[in-house]
Amino acid sequence: MLVVMQEGAAESHIQKVIDRLVSMGFIVHRSSGVLHTVLGGVGPVNDFDPIEFEVMAGVKECHRIVSPYKLASRHFRPGGTVIKIGDVEIGGSQVIVMAGPCSVENRDQIEQAAEAVAGDGAKVIRGGAFKPRSSPYSFQGLGEDGLRMLREAADRHGLLVVSEVMEQAQIPLLLNYADILQVGARNMQNYNLLRQLGEVRKPILLKRGISATIEELLLSAEYIMSGGNYDVMLCERGIRTFETSTRNTMDISAIPVVKSLSHLPIIADPSHGTGRRDKVLPMARAAVAAGADGLLIEVHHDPDRALSDGAQSLHPAQFTELMGQLRTIAKAVDRSI
Amino acid sequence: MLVVMQEGAAESHIQKVIDRLVSMGFIVHRSSGVLHTVLGGVGPVNDFDPIEFEVMAGVKECHRIVSPYKLASRHFRPGGTVIKIGDVEIGGSQVIVMAGPCSVENRDQIEQAAEAVAGDGAKVIRGGAFKPRSSPYSFQGLGEDGLRMLREAADRHGLLVVSEVMEQAQIPLLLNYADILQVGARNMQNYNLLRQLGEVRKPILLKRGISATIEELLLSAEYIMSGGNYDVMLCERGIRTFETSTRNTMDISAIPVVKSLSHLPIIADPSHGTGRRDKVLPMARAAVAAGADGLLIEVHHDPDRALSDGAQSLHPAQFTELMGQLRTIAKAVDRSI
Amino acid sequence: MLVVMQEGAAESHIQKVIDRLVSMGFIVHRSSGVLHTVLGGVGPVNDFDPIEFEVMAGVKECHRIVSPYKLASRHFRPGGTVIKIGDVEIGGSQVIVMAGPCSVENRDQIEQAAEAVAGDGAKVIRGGAFKPRSSPYSFQGLGEDGLRMLREAADRHGLLVVSEVMEQAQIPLLLNYADILQVGARNMQNYNLLRQLGEVRKPILLKRGISATIEELLLSAEYIMSGGNYDVMLCERGIRTFETSTRNTMDISAIPVVKSLSHLPIIADPSHGTGRRDKVLPMARAAVAAGADGLLIEVHHDPDRALSDGAQSLHPAQFTELMGQLRTIAKAVDRSI
Amino acid sequence: MLVVMQEGAAESHIQKVIDRLVSMGFIVHRSSGVLHTVLGGVGPVNDFDPIEFEVMAGVKECHRIVSPYKLASRHFRPGGTVIKIGDVEIGGSQVIVMAGPCSVENRDQIEQAAEAVAGDGAKVIRGGAFKPRSSPYSFQGLGEDGLRMLREAADRHGLLVVSEVMEQAQIPLLLNYADILQVGARNMQNYNLLRQLGEVRKPILLKRGISATIEELLLSAEYIMSGGNYDVMLCERGIRTFETSTRNTMDISAIPVVKSLSHLPIIADPSHGTGRRDKVLPMARAAVAAGADGLLIEVHHDPDRALSDGAQSLHPAQFTELMGQLRTIAKAVDRSI
Repeated sequence: MLVVMQEGAAESHIQKVIDRLVSMGFIVHRSSGVLHTVLGGVGPVNDFDPIEFEVMAGVKECHRIVSPYKLASRHFRPGGTVIKIGDVEIGGSQVIVMAGPCSVENRDQIEQAAEAVAGDGAKVIRGGAFKPRSSPYSFQGLGEDGLRMLREAADRHGLLVVSEVMEQAQIPLLLNYADILQVGARNMQNYNLLRQLGEVRKPILLKRGISATIEELLLSAEYIMSGGNYDVMLCERGIRTFETSTRNTMDISAIPVVKSLSHLPIIADPSHGTGRRDKVLPMARAAVAAGADGLLIEVHHDPDRALSDGAQSLHPAQFTELMGQLRTIAKAVDRSI
Repeated sequence: MLVVMQEGAAESHIQKVIDRLVSMGFIVHRSSGVLHTVLGGVGPVNDFDPIEFEVMAGVKECHRIVSPYKLASRHFRPGGTVIKIGDVEIGGSQVIVMAGPCSVENRDQIEQAAEAVAGDGAKVIRGGAFKPRSSPYSFQGLGEDGLRMLREAADRHGLLVVSEVMEQAQIPLLLNYADILQVGARNMQNYNLLRQLGEVRKPILLKRGISATIEELLLSAEYIMSGGNYDVMLCERGIRTFETSTRNTMDISAIPVVKSLSHLPIIADPSHGTGRRDKVLPMARAAVAAGADGLLIEVHHDPDRALSDGAQSLHPAQFTELMGQLRTIAKAVDRSI
Repeated sequence: MLVVMQEGAAESHIQKVIDRLVSMGFIVHRSSGVLHTVLGGVGPVNDFDPIEFEVMAGVKECHRIVSPYKLASRHFRPGGTVIKIGDVEIGGSQVIVMAGPCSVENRDQIEQAAEAVAGDGAKVIRGGAFKPRSSPYSFQGLGEDGLRMLREAADRHGLLVVSEVMEQAQIPLLLNYADILQVGARNMQNYNLLRQLGEVRKPILLKRGISATIEELLLSAEYIMSGGNYDVMLCERGIRTFETSTRNTMDISAIPVVKSLSHLPIIADPSHGTGRRDKVLPMARAAVAAGADGLLIEVHHDPDRALSDGAQSLHPAQFTELMGQLRTIAKAVDRSI
Repeated sequence: MLVVMQEGAAESHIQKVIDRLVSMGFIVHRSSGVLHTVLGGVGPVNDFDPIEFEVMAGVKECHRIVSPYKLASRHFRPGGTVIKIGDVEIGGSQVIVMAGPCSVENRDQIEQAAEAVAGDGAKVIRGGAFKPRSSPYSFQGLGEDGLRMLREAADRHGLLVVSEVMEQAQIPLLLNYADILQVGARNMQNYNLLRQLGEVRKPILLKRGISATIEELLLSAEYIMSGGNYDVMLCERGIRTFETSTRNTMDISAIPVVKSLSHLPIIADPSHGTGRRDKVLPMARAAVAAGADGLLIEVHHDPDRALSDGAQSLHPAQFTELMGQLRTIAKAVDRSI
């Protein structure tokens, strides 16, 4: 840890900072330059907030040197993590496509979706059984019935299942039906939920909050991993900016940034990232070109009648077209799809 | 609802939009201008997403005319809501100050806090019993023991209690000890929690999420109110922007904006809004000058040793100074403190 | 134009709005719904600010129906604009790569750059002669000497020249040496400069400001076009957001959004968009995958010794690698490079 | 300067960074911790970009220790700067109000404005003579005629004049008529203009760009000061965020932040900061409560007919009301008005 004192900071202020560092167990190195005194602290403690030092008299700024996350950092596994589920590898040379409707609505709908996306090369089917809706009067999901339909359709077509877990109480249910448990953007910092998922032995797909920095996303992954579950994949799905022509601004650069900072696979969700069907294709292509390990895409056989998120769901024919384009793009980055 | 068609939109596209509106139960008025055809829809449905129309062929844009919230809108109670708890009125002519430590640490600490803040004119004591911490190794709060200490200290000094409820399961416990249940910024869109709080008969203090628009804040209030609990106060506590010299950017203009759009009282939290003790005083003054109905302020008798958020906690002497300044400022806006 | 009145707006307030609309030359249609009165205005005037109505008593909101830009809108030229310079076509089926150093430093440097980028298939060489530097002590560019070197190197290698014009007085000089005049992000709303460029008969490359919406970018293009110069290409180069792991957040979704809203070609600048060499390759690939008509890329034979922006300049070998990848990706979107 | 190497960085990478630092004239201190090697550089150079080191192999991050600005920093003049113009002191114990119309429209208008604002206690009249308008067809300002009218009205009422300079060529004209030269938000990083204003001997009012950080604002002030003109006052006028219920988000916390980082006076512009008349009063009060040294406020005797920015101009009666409130608030922060 580095504490930079203000120009001309009083000796008494410097001593107070040194005392506090020492009391926290740090070994302190002091170095005095022409303008600034810098205090370097080496110690076992990393769980502190630099701002605690920045409000002390005479302090200019405080930098943490050691990353606040360890298990999630690239240094922990320089070769990268490959999550294996059956014969599907996420984070390997193949780009894994997870597709399906926003929510499971009925048996027919999910069967049609499974058939369509499996036929085009998706490896995982997605579908929500619990829907957090901003209106109390909207469709809230089919619950366990939905999960059962999803599982059955997946099994008929050789697909894996990813579905969202919205609160701790739902974990056992999800474990019964899903292969990958998804944590939604609004739950990215629900620490109680993350802690429980650390004890689970199935892979987690962790979505970035719409106003979360990449560092915060990695800290949330660390939270899960610190419980012993290392199979975490991250997911970029758009951040909130001043631009209003898209629902969110999909941060494609997060893909290479995560790749440098972490060993965890990174998935892109262009459906939520854009909110509009006509922008999903270009952004899905961009994500793969930027190095994404997978995609999460909403597909519905009749989007205009979807019970949720119809505007961002692809028609099956669009999905077919997209998969063709992605196969070509994957080659440019030495991958397959 | 208004759907504006693109210049030269095909008649078939216009008809498709009309058909969809009619099928949703709208009565449609069509008006053709030199450049654009505009379709106005009057109907019972308000729970739809304009983007569903914007992705239709030939559509330029779609505007909801009716606000998505009703109970929370100023029109619902033009005179404004005053929440009464005993002889304390929130939203009335007095500016209500709620102060105390970030978290309840022990009996002595909370007693000292209660004595200090009551002596300076605060009406409510704050203190967390459950702390959502980004590190699994940090202090997680004292739970029910903390709530009991808080209640006892409050009672000794004639204060009300506000404390945060972090998940549904904690509601009964909070109801036993607190007068006001606080919903944290990260839970602003935890709809299951909001729904439960709609059935509670104690006032709710609802914090704005760091990337939530004011409209989204009002929608979350609506969620609670639609359950029958109309005693909701809103709280501005800083939004995330590109500026990094403060932890968050406290959106003081949200105070007058909420006042025009809604009848609900608006509280300001300059402690979380700035993250730094030295910025709390000016921002607390600014909030009252802008018309806030109350303040939520962290005060600790020994901030350097606080178990959480010490950097943003005021020393008791600073709190005393602040209260003096606020009394003067309140007069400028025809209020007392 | 549409003015939506508040619920229960007084008749006198409605009349005041009608009077104002009529006095501005609008023909007004009034429609009264259950909750809201809506006033539709049809008229010749489009140059007004909706907020002027929104501050009137009883008004809820005001929407402009007609886009504030016309010449720049897709509707004006549904087939899209192709800018032809010699045998280079920008906006056609070929993706045009413009590459070269941030600034022209000396004859050798620019010759090496021209040779490298031409060899790999770039059609245009970039290089700044006037550098707006945040420090008054930094390298300020070679001025006309730099332009001459750039032109000569370009001619030796069959390349076109793009270079930035920073103020009106530099226009004649740029016209002498460059084929495309670039307007930097900070000048995107320098209306005097834009007006002058409307009278020029060479293509303009207009960069998006770091906090400009796409609508504002199109309005600036309109400013140039209204002077008679229709050869405007737009350029996405990153926006400012809360994320700090990249200098800017490159808004890849702006590429398909511009394609829907406008007929003008859209170029992407991943060098400024990311600020870091190691992120330029993935973002350049993403831009082409998302449908960009061209790229603007910084290349320097010795980036560590570049006089400006070395950190974001590619080594020539990286550029070669990138061009190979882009050729594959271009095929996926039915284009060549 | 501090370069933090990655965990386990190769010795060859460390040496490369040391070599580069030495070649730039730095004396390098190396300190090896359990996880990270940290290189501290002391030297004469401060004009470099940390990112140049961050793209080097093995580097984790690079921090500048010395602020990039010196003359603008609080340390340079711990007591604060008071700018004296005649008997008006900006930055002293009195809060200085600058008020008047957005643009000078005619002799009558500006005379009425001068009379009104002087009567209520303003010390400076504002009014634009050159208007940068987003539409080429809008009112562009009266130019020198406007400045003359402004000067005459000011002199009749004992007011100082502040007016905007939009480009270098206008400086001599402004010097003839104005007491304070204003640099607009869009010109905050127009370095050529800033350099010229460094040679001027009249005070400069420098507005923060809508997406500028406070550090960038101070760097722009430094640019002017490095030319010898130390009479710079800064102005907060709203930043661009995701919130759309106000035109900009006025960053009130910038006021105390500037006060800690710099000795320069800070002015607030609630008219541009909010864009709406009904929000100007609360935000003006908030700015003074937060410690602003002055206000810049638009007042027009007939805002509905103003040729520019009518929606954000106060009626004279509102201005009178505001001044009364401000007098009370000023007392709370030991100031007068």
